[in-house]
Amino acid sequence: MPRAAWARGAERMNFKLVLRITGFTLFIEAAAMLLPMMVALFYGESPVPFLCAILLSLAAAAVPVFFFKPKPDFFAREGFFTVGLIWVLFGVFGALPFWFSGQFGPYIDCFFETISGFTTTGATILTAIEGLPMGLLFWRSFTHWLGGMGVLILTAALLPFLGISSNFLIRAESPGPVKSKLVPRASQSSKILYAIYLALTVLEVLLLRMAGMNWYDAVTHSMSTAGTGGFSRMNASVGSFHSPAIEIIITVFMLLFSINFSVYFLVLTGKVRQALKSDELRFFLIMVAVSTAAIAWNIRDVYATAGDCVRYAAFQVSSIVSTTGFSSDNYDLWPEFSKMLLVVLTFVGACGGSTGGGIKCGRILILIRSAAREVRSIIHPRAVSVVRLDGATVSESAIRTAQCYFIANLFLVFGMAIVVGLDNFSFGTTLTAVITCISNVGPGLELVGPAGNFSAFSVLSKLVLSFAMILGRLEMFPILVLFSGSAWKRS
Amino acid sequence: MPRAAWARGAERMNFKLVLRITGFTLFIEAAAMLLPMMVALFYGESPVPFLCAILLSLAAAAVPVFFFKPKPDFFAREGFFTVGLIWVLFGVFGALPFWFSGQFGPYIDCFFETISGFTTTGATILTAIEGLPMGLLFWRSFTHWLGGMGVLILTAALLPFLGISSNFLIRAESPGPVKSKLVPRASQSSKILYAIYLALTVLEVLLLRMAGMNWYDAVTHSMSTAGTGGFSRMNASVGSFHSPAIEIIITVFMLLFSINFSVYFLVLTGKVRQALKSDELRFFLIMVAVSTAAIAWNIRDVYATAGDCVRYAAFQVSSIVSTTGFSSDNYDLWPEFSKMLLVVLTFVGACGGSTGGGIKCGRILILIRSAAREVRSIIHPRAVSVVRLDGATVSESAIRTAQCYFIANLFLVFGMAIVVGLDNFSFGTTLTAVITCISNVGPGLELVGPAGNFSAFSVLSKLVLSFAMILGRLEMFPILVLFSGSAWKRS
Repeated sequence: MPRAAWARGAERMNFKLVLRITGFTLFIEAAAMLLPMMVALFYGESPVPFLCAILLSLAAAAVPVFFFKPKPDFFAREGFFTVGLIWVLFGVFGALPFWFSGQFGPYIDCFFETISGFTTTGATILTAIEGLPMGLLFWRSFTHWLGGMGVLILTAALLPFLGISSNFLIRAESPGPVKSKLVPRASQSSKILYAIYLALTVLEVLLLRMAGMNWYDAVTHSMSTAGTGGFSRMNASVGSFHSPAIEIIITVFMLLFSINFSVYFLVLTGKVRQALKSDELRFFLIMVAVSTAAIAWNIRDVYATAGDCVRYAAFQVSSIVSTTGFSSDNYDLWPEFSKMLLVVLTFVGACGGSTGGGIKCGRILILIRSAAREVRSIIHPRAVSVVRLDGATVSESAIRTAQCYFIANLFLVFGMAIVVGLDNFSFGTTLTAVITCISNVGPGLELVGPAGNFSAFSVLSKLVLSFAMILGRLEMFPILVLFSGSAWKRS
Repeated sequence: MPRAAWARGAERMNFKLVLRITGFTLFIEAAAMLLPMMVALFYGESPVPFLCAILLSLAAAAVPVFFFKPKPDFFAREGFFTVGLIWVLFGVFGALPFWFSGQFGPYIDCFFETISGFTTTGATILTAIEGLPMGLLFWRSFTHWLGGMGVLILTAALLPFLGISSNFLIRAESPGPVKSKLVPRASQSSKILYAIYLALTVLEVLLLRMAGMNWYDAVTHSMSTAGTGGFSRMNASVGSFHSPAIEIIITVFMLLFSINFSVYFLVLTGKVRQALKSDELRFFLIMVAVSTAAIAWNIRDVYATAGDCVRYAAFQVSSIVSTTGFSSDNYDLWPEFSKMLLVVLTFVGACGGSTGGGIKCGRILILIRSAAREVRSIIHPRAVSVVRLDGATVSESAIRTAQCYFIANLFLVFGMAIVVGLDNFSFGTTLTAVITCISNVGPGLELVGPAGNFSAFSVLSKLVLSFAMILGRLEMFPILVLFSGSAWKRS
């Protein structure tokens, strides 16, 4: 009797190796929790929630790592399954300190908050943040920083002895439509990226400290900026500091973290002109400038001076396009034009090869140019016409992939919005909650606006929105492939 | 000195022939206005608004028709330009009876209402409809009926002596991703389609009359159904009649008018099995059934009996997917799940080759299957895989066109929503106003919900939304091509 594809596939899937790699990664998560535990101890808070979480994670990871003796068979489907599993388990175990503390509500809320952290979304279920333990809030921002470059790139960088799998894993996880392999070996490449990432973070910490933040706030906000996450220790986010200098520094760094990291690599190796010759970068900068100008004009009656308008507009535009999600004021009270523009920018997102999310400017450019070509072909059906990016021809398969990415994104947004609609919140709340989660931004409009939070949603909606965050962070296809029968059959 | 592409192109465009064809079409519009004028006379109302409108239209049309002696050069770009111009001018001149009556507000409102009529959208600027002159309300529904099959197909059917242009025009105007040429000659083909259209309309009139409507209401509501338009003489639309029989008849006919007319042709010629073997039709019917069931369940607390829930759900789902836009109750008061589902159905729309609008089920199917193929190709990158529809392979260029259609649709929706956002209405009002106009449905949510109207929008928004309606009715590309430089250059 023929069995279902799933069952047949599962039988042959190398689960032991998948779980062993997952175990290694959980070790890293457990190790990462030591840092917030030390912060907790430093502030005289209880380390118990962290200690329990670390022990549980180690116990869960130890079984496959020490006792499984898998065969070395590792194919694409194992890679995608591993990536999906690791991201879910990072949420499952990373939520434990929040849960054990008893201050973050039911487990589903802790899970949502952790997934929101690792996916660098920054959507929160917390209704009052100020006053919560410093160690837990540090962990919250630290998940952004770890998630920013991808927990798997971290694994690959630290565990090159895993060898066999790291390339598959990074291919499944690395952001951006345009692959820019900086150096041939993956572990080497991720070390360079991490060095740039670390250096920029440290620079931001120092500047924020000079601008008057205390060390704790400087570090946590820098980590949230670096991962383009958006968690803040303050209820009113960056606006709480009432400091133009801090806002300007964070604006600049949000933009720095949303451009392709290969630009920094090129700049560091003296190829400045080549670094600036990117169509995507130009599109991104023009979009930021035009949106800032339009919003500054639209909010001219909200703030006292033109300078304030530009500062608030620039901050919010940078926060949204970088998919960070900080706010310097409650933009949900701005006129609808500004809000609609911010929602559209939520879709667009940052540049490929950055820590930012969204559809990405590179894809948007490819989509615009391919649609323009389609229109031209109506008049000149026989003319051969190619889509170009950075002067080079974009392959038809890359165009098709970008188009399918956009289509899958929108279909999933509307599908999930219908499910979240079961909670019976307003149209604006429901739709922008899904958009902001799948784009890894964080805040949306109305109930989930910058002054709101996600606590009121049902368990089902929180699961759907967590799924949206993982979909967005992993750029959809690696997760969608697990729902395709062909992933479970050997070719 | 090199001149702009536009100027160079315009210099060579065969404007005289374009205007001459446009003139012929305006003659038809003037003739069409005779019917509502007779209705006005029948009800003892003033025929003057119609008389003035007819005379002005004739005068404007007479110049190019009688005095221009154009060369016969007619290429694709002339075709697209003609189509766009005719649709705009139909609005410009068709608005005159409303404007001359003084009961429809400023000219922009009359223009919006007329474009909404001819594009079979059904979005209205009227705040109180009942009590307006019967002749004018007849004209309002009659524009739906004329627009339903396309004013140009009408032209081509009545004026075969135009010869040269009719095929180009119909190609630019005919709906649906799948062309189904019933019979070789365009004018012959459109005569068959019009006969089916007329027969179904007459059948609906008779059934509605039997269900208790008076002749006037039966005729106007049948014309609005046939064109999948949605204008009603009553403020509360079809719900005003408080008649389940009427609601059920209209539900059935809304569905009948949203399936591919070639199905009727096949049924008439005895090929019933072939007619029912359409993937698009199956997808459409399943979507209607599932959506009706889901909404009926979701509104179980709103109505007294399960039968009522199903009847209201079926009516509203059929009204939205057919892109008619009638309502049997104010669904803006339903739970968010139902509303979000209706908004998503607003995007999807009817079947190709029908009078309905939206993205169309055939395209949606192609998009889903091509995205699924893309996901499969991640696991099996070297496997050759095709997208199938009705058992046949869909060409890669047809897939690309469907994808670009979807992308252009969404980009335009969000772009126009930003502009309409300048009016500072809510997120839900702004976004659903644009979606419902580009999909030619009519009502959206909140301020533009079934109990609302479009009168509060600014002149700019009304122009943008009129543009959206024409874009949607002409399936985007024929209009977008006019904004492409290549349309203005000879190849």
